[in-house]
Amino acid sequence: MTALNVGIIGLGNVGGGALEILRDNAASIEARLGFPLRVRAICSPSIGTTRAAAVQGLPADVIRTADWRVVVNDPEIQVIAELVGGTGVAAEIIAAAIAAGKSVVTANKALMAVRGVELWEQARAAGVSLSMEASVAGGIPIHAVLREGIAGDRIDALIGILNGTCNYILTEMERRGDSFEDVLAEAQALGYAEADPSADVDGLDARSKLALLAGLAFGTRVMPDDIHVEGIRRIRSIDFAYAHRLGHTVRLIGSAERDERGLLLSVQPALVPSDAILAHVQGAYNAVWVRGAYGQDTFYYGRGAGPTPTGVAVVSDLMRAAREIRNGGLAPASPFAHITLAEHAPRSTAEQVRRWYLRFRVTDQPGIIARLASVLAEANISIDAVLQLPGEAKDDLPFVITLEPTPAGQVAAAVAAMARLDFLVDAPLALPFESGLGTPR
Amino acid sequence: MTALNVGIIGLGNVGGGALEILRDNAASIEARLGFPLRVRAICSPSIGTTRAAAVQGLPADVIRTADWRVVVNDPEIQVIAELVGGTGVAAEIIAAAIAAGKSVVTANKALMAVRGVELWEQARAAGVSLSMEASVAGGIPIHAVLREGIAGDRIDALIGILNGTCNYILTEMERRGDSFEDVLAEAQALGYAEADPSADVDGLDARSKLALLAGLAFGTRVMPDDIHVEGIRRIRSIDFAYAHRLGHTVRLIGSAERDERGLLLSVQPALVPSDAILAHVQGAYNAVWVRGAYGQDTFYYGRGAGPTPTGVAVVSDLMRAAREIRNGGLAPASPFAHITLAEHAPRSTAEQVRRWYLRFRVTDQPGIIARLASVLAEANISIDAVLQLPGEAKDDLPFVITLEPTPAGQVAAAVAAMARLDFLVDAPLALPFESGLGTPR
Repeated sequence: MTALNVGIIGLGNVGGGALEILRDNAASIEARLGFPLRVRAICSPSIGTTRAAAVQGLPADVIRTADWRVVVNDPEIQVIAELVGGTGVAAEIIAAAIAAGKSVVTANKALMAVRGVELWEQARAAGVSLSMEASVAGGIPIHAVLREGIAGDRIDALIGILNGTCNYILTEMERRGDSFEDVLAEAQALGYAEADPSADVDGLDARSKLALLAGLAFGTRVMPDDIHVEGIRRIRSIDFAYAHRLGHTVRLIGSAERDERGLLLSVQPALVPSDAILAHVQGAYNAVWVRGAYGQDTFYYGRGAGPTPTGVAVVSDLMRAAREIRNGGLAPASPFAHITLAEHAPRSTAEQVRRWYLRFRVTDQPGIIARLASVLAEANISIDAVLQLPGEAKDDLPFVITLEPTPAGQVAAAVAAMARLDFLVDAPLALPFESGLGTPR
Repeated sequence: MTALNVGIIGLGNVGGGALEILRDNAASIEARLGFPLRVRAICSPSIGTTRAAAVQGLPADVIRTADWRVVVNDPEIQVIAELVGGTGVAAEIIAAAIAAGKSVVTANKALMAVRGVELWEQARAAGVSLSMEASVAGGIPIHAVLREGIAGDRIDALIGILNGTCNYILTEMERRGDSFEDVLAEAQALGYAEADPSADVDGLDARSKLALLAGLAFGTRVMPDDIHVEGIRRIRSIDFAYAHRLGHTVRLIGSAERDERGLLLSVQPALVPSDAILAHVQGAYNAVWVRGAYGQDTFYYGRGAGPTPTGVAVVSDLMRAAREIRNGGLAPASPFAHITLAEHAPRSTAEQVRRWYLRFRVTDQPGIIARLASVLAEANISIDAVLQLPGEAKDDLPFVITLEPTPAGQVAAAVAAMARLDFLVDAPLALPFESGLGTPR
């Protein structure tokens, strides 16, 4: 059968990885599809000067352009991969490709998290497909799992380690006992973290990914702003020592949980039991734990990013789009299941009840525990345990109070009330215990 | 839109689970598909007397029959779920359904492992789909992952814990220190193991599953007989003590690995590093670790069996088949990728080089190590270490010799040569070290 033509727009890490796979794995791709995928055009603003190996190796007749409109308007091209990223021109490219009757594959989590539903509706109306396996946890085929593999289940909860940079920083802090600042600086020097690390370490990247995953898992529209977010900047190496003492470790966890009143969504550092499989996710890996009403617990693990792991997701999506086009009929499994049951609407996590870890830094003096305990008592919060590891400086003394199950809002109010206490070096750090998931039920 | 009619043949655990989900999760299924799935007919030899709750709750107009031909020949039914199992009548049902122009969903690993390719060709020729997510690792959507999610990758290796009964027995032996026989008897009493446990504990069930998974992952035809198989009957609690001392545990591992000369396939108990995620798979759970040339390592974990976890796989397959039918075009991603490259053909594991664990039981006497060492030296095998835990009886004394990397065939020959040694209580147990996978590269 004749080849199906694809256009690749954006030749950064992901575009380069996808091109490499399309070239080196072409025989296997053709065998699986029954026809070849042919790269007909590539596009990058720096196309004239790019030296990426994957680009150099392309046949001479591949169109090379800096103008994405050339690719989108090429009548021979049936599928476009938008690998530019961001919420600006990428949105234009996707809308124009759909309008031109082309199916679209994207790796763009930021855009899809805010405008995905709308773009999907446009694609459906135009009779083309829109897929985004690469947008979340690049190396883990979690979209295929939720869209196809366990589509028949009713998901009750989903938690994940969704940002490889944060997981790298936290696991290195844990392994070496170094500070957040030192590990971040090293990660930046190694190119694992951006010069402006905010999107990663403040949890914003994980928040976009959780919005996409929750939309897919629960069949509702979740916007990033619906999600409570806290980053990892305040985690100190002493927190790992305390967590270990409590049989736990600390990870940045994206959590989406359904109860009878709606969806509880958060991205924040949390205590994960040391014997949970999630606690064994090291370095830049990502992982997703899903609890279904019928399928019970399943777990998915793989590279969070990287040119070829994310490239596999792009190429697999291209193959699915190509198969649908060649079969003359689309099988549009929506990446957004069009359920918007009221009970699935996002709601505030203020009422979410969990156990809590409160870590204080104080200038030591008599009566500290009594005064903290009285603030907690006034807030009607029960203390589970008080914990202090030996050998710390008296002028910046850390210790931990764990709480009985308490709503998040009540904990936040108590922590705010503690701001007036003069013996605190800084605001208390409150981390929830993620004990419900991550180990089989 | 009007409902799409399905017929369920076989009302055992899996059929009951699928019916329960189709009934209780109907709103979500309809929202995701855009139309309802309606159970039009159910079939079981004991249909007149069945008291399964899921059957009792069905509407009165659902056809109830003991004759599968009634379901297959019903012109209103477009998709059949064959949940009878076995290689007898199930094959007739699937062939007849395909001939009648109906798409088929099956949970039948035994049949698909031997006749899957042929049945798939029939389905393709007839323009219907054939899917089998439920056939391997019921709760893990590993077919969707290999067929869609990472279709663009080139798989280099796949290992898995594919039999929940064996994993339950091994992890209980490990946890409690009990014998194989005691844990098996208890598992039988609890209904976790069959009265005739051979299919599970001799590795035959895992072998069928590995044949299916390897076919899908490597795009070649793998028959169960191509796979070297050893069961878990000879594992003793002392093996866990020695494995722990070596920083490992013991699990029944299905392994498929590609090298430049073909596919190396085995199902056998193996030593898994204690810090590998695979070692944390407890009880009746299943898990699959995949290493791709581009996507690198990914890991999938979930229930191995059970009515509703397997039911989710059946219902998800029904949804996919229904979507394909309603869209007027099939998107037949083959469960068997039609690649039969010579380099992917199964080949003997005799040349597969691994580290080995040899466990002996001897009647203690002087010179034992010397005589065993000389047999190994004659076979040109290098000893890594000799290990003996204290406190065992002199007339049935266990100890362990670990070997440097050695081809499996050479180890088997040396073990056979040891049969003539009069101080051995029984034949040495040889287990490979599964050190290459199960931890991220």
